Amino acid sequence: MAESFSTLRINPDRMLDSFNQLALIGATGDGGVNRTTFSEAHLAARKWFREQIEASGLEFRTDGAGNHSAFLSCGIADAPTLLFGSHLDSVPKGGRFDGALGVMAAFEALRTIKENGINLKLNLEAIDFTDEEGTHLSLFGSSALSGHLHPEDFQNPYSGRENFIAGLAGAGLTEAGLLQAKRPKKTVAGYLELHIEQGKRLERAGIDIGVVSAIVGYGSYRMSYVGRADHAGSTAMEDRLDAGQGGAAFILAARETVMRNFPNCVANVGKIEFVPGASNIVPARADFLLEFRSPDADQLAKLDAVLIQLAKQKAEQFGLQLTAEPLGKHIPNLMSAEIQQAFQRSCADLGLSSTVLASGAIHDAQSLVDVCPIGMIFVPSVDGASHAPREFTKWEDCVNGANVLLQTALQLAAG
Amino acid sequence: MAESFSTLRINPDRMLDSFNQLALIGATGDGGVNRTTFSEAHLAARKWFREQIEASGLEFRTDGAGNHSAFLSCGIADAPTLLFGSHLDSVPKGGRFDGALGVMAAFEALRTIKENGINLKLNLEAIDFTDEEGTHLSLFGSSALSGHLHPEDFQNPYSGRENFIAGLAGAGLTEAGLLQAKRPKKTVAGYLELHIEQGKRLERAGIDIGVVSAIVGYGSYRMSYVGRADHAGSTAMEDRLDAGQGGAAFILAARETVMRNFPNCVANVGKIEFVPGASNIVPARADFLLEFRSPDADQLAKLDAVLIQLAKQKAEQFGLQLTAEPLGKHIPNLMSAEIQQAFQRSCADLGLSSTVLASGAIHDAQSLVDVCPIGMIFVPSVDGASHAPREFTKWEDCVNGANVLLQTALQLAAG
Repeated sequence: MAESFSTLRINPDRMLDSFNQLALIGATGDGGVNRTTFSEAHLAARKWFREQIEASGLEFRTDGAGNHSAFLSCGIADAPTLLFGSHLDSVPKGGRFDGALGVMAAFEALRTIKENGINLKLNLEAIDFTDEEGTHLSLFGSSALSGHLHPEDFQNPYSGRENFIAGLAGAGLTEAGLLQAKRPKKTVAGYLELHIEQGKRLERAGIDIGVVSAIVGYGSYRMSYVGRADHAGSTAMEDRLDAGQGGAAFILAARETVMRNFPNCVANVGKIEFVPGASNIVPARADFLLEFRSPDADQLAKLDAVLIQLAKQKAEQFGLQLTAEPLGKHIPNLMSAEIQQAFQRSCADLGLSSTVLASGAIHDAQSLVDVCPIGMIFVPSVDGASHAPREFTKWEDCVNGANVLLQTALQLAAG
Repeated sequence: MAESFSTLRINPDRMLDSFNQLALIGATGDGGVNRTTFSEAHLAARKWFREQIEASGLEFRTDGAGNHSAFLSCGIADAPTLLFGSHLDSVPKGGRFDGALGVMAAFEALRTIKENGINLKLNLEAIDFTDEEGTHLSLFGSSALSGHLHPEDFQNPYSGRENFIAGLAGAGLTEAGLLQAKRPKKTVAGYLELHIEQGKRLERAGIDIGVVSAIVGYGSYRMSYVGRADHAGSTAMEDRLDAGQGGAAFILAARETVMRNFPNCVANVGKIEFVPGASNIVPARADFLLEFRSPDADQLAKLDAVLIQLAKQKAEQFGLQLTAEPLGKHIPNLMSAEIQQAFQRSCADLGLSSTVLASGAIHDAQSLVDVCPIGMIFVPSVDGASHAPREFTKWEDCVNGANVLLQTALQLAAG
């Protein structure tokens, strides 16, 4: 059978046209996009994708979590579906490749397969998962599809309960609907995703395709140091309980500790606020978000414990109280060995170099790890940049990735 | 003449009644008040004070900056006026003593002098200066009265231009009016102010009254470290330009430097923000407010230079860009030796212990330093607390301060 499709290639011009149209929706004017989930731009991108699907002759499908799909039936009753896709939402002032490339490549692969009338044994579905970036809930749409969402998750979303409710309403979704998006395992044959690397490894090594072996585990906390508000002019330095000092000391020490003792791991404090937040008041509180990642489950647990211990030490050092509320958490997730091999075969057939690496970022794929075999590939990120307007991947790398995705989907789904 | 008034005392019950009424306006429910300038609560406090003045039989006066006064004429044509007072606005979630005590004590002293028919050679005026805390402009009302405000000050107020304009309108003020509040020097004989110490020195030493020798000088900057936004999972620690690290390192180092090399000085970072401000993005920018104070002009300049140098070092250490925009600045201001002596005589006459100290906080008095002789006294702050709801001064200390103010005003103004 392989001979019938091994020379098939996606249409790079059509994919580029779609990719560029999408990149204009929520464009920040400097190459980036601002499409946080359920923002006006995000809703516009969703509407655009739906129209593209309908115009392509593929079937448009959606579910209670607002995941949008292009669907191509194999015509076999009760056949399971091979999913492939990514997400159209972005972080605030993010890049135009993160997520969008994966959706556009899956959509283009599906258009190519449809127009070539390839015989399939599985249904194919190119999916845009709602809110991968976690504006509201971590891996929102893929978690809903996998049945991992629970009503209690809706009480304390990252965006706050009020914004979450307003966002759902704006997208025509309901909390009840989110819980109904779960798909039976037997209906899902697998999940493939093409994504930009968001790091420098492929570029440094001069390799075309990264075949992902695992997605790193992830932990996060909402933390606060609590000290005392005092007049910043009349309170001597030694009389202060300055919560800002605790926050600053932890931010520095967390980086040093990770770099010294956890060489494959990362940690970040991406948001901080001092309360009450006036120039002439000693901070009574420093509120911040901590996150950290590791490719290994045991190492992740150790890193978690070490960072919390470090935070406590800094509280003690500056006479502060510490609170640490756990937020999202994911253990490291392994990719299917079979799908990794299929990706590697596709690369070899296409004459592309490939290497195996772990993903430092979380991705929708990991939501599906207990639903079906999962697989991901990366294409090189110029200068490793991501989650920023200067995020960039050369178009030929995007096309290479889309062809690997096409060929691998065909290996798995062609009849 | 001294015999005629040296036994005069303010009415502590009446002052307490007024003080408590005022403390209910904008009360936060935990002992504090929220009366930022031109907020609803602040406007209500201003209205209440005006009604109290009118009810007392004293003359109500106001000016183009919205300073509110109780006025007692000495009946002599062209006699200058001895001002005494403080302010009714508060920092966000501030205490009920800061400013309010000084206005209530001055008002009470004026009521006492009026009802006792004391013969005066100067007019007396108990004044509430608009926006001492600088919600909009630093020492706003007293600077207007002293002729230090200029149209360019109105373009970039702390609150932002829009809030400033809205605030003025809400208080029935205009920018043109602010510039007309300036008083000719010959009309102002001096300025006295009673304030809480906002520090622990008097309480620690067990002393009743602090006679202020100088108000410390003050400098402030709006600072930013600029790095690069990167994905916080997929960007290795060593590949980051994390602006948050610069901010954290500076916050720690500024405190250490001040404590080690500038023992009489203070520094504070009271507000900070990471941009874009998402958990999973390495901070591209850390924006924060720095302020620092010294009682000595040369030391203040040295401290300024050292802190800026330190900020540059941290930028270099973490590969960041630094911007530092100067905000408010005040040189240290010396109190009148004559008024200091008058305060000390009053303390001795009243059987109160006193000491001479510098004020770590800025006060309206310093606006008037080139207009007239100025003087200030402090009463003890319990646990040094201020700019917070737990700010507290024992009522007997408040009464002591008001009597020192009364006696000193009489020493200077009685005929």
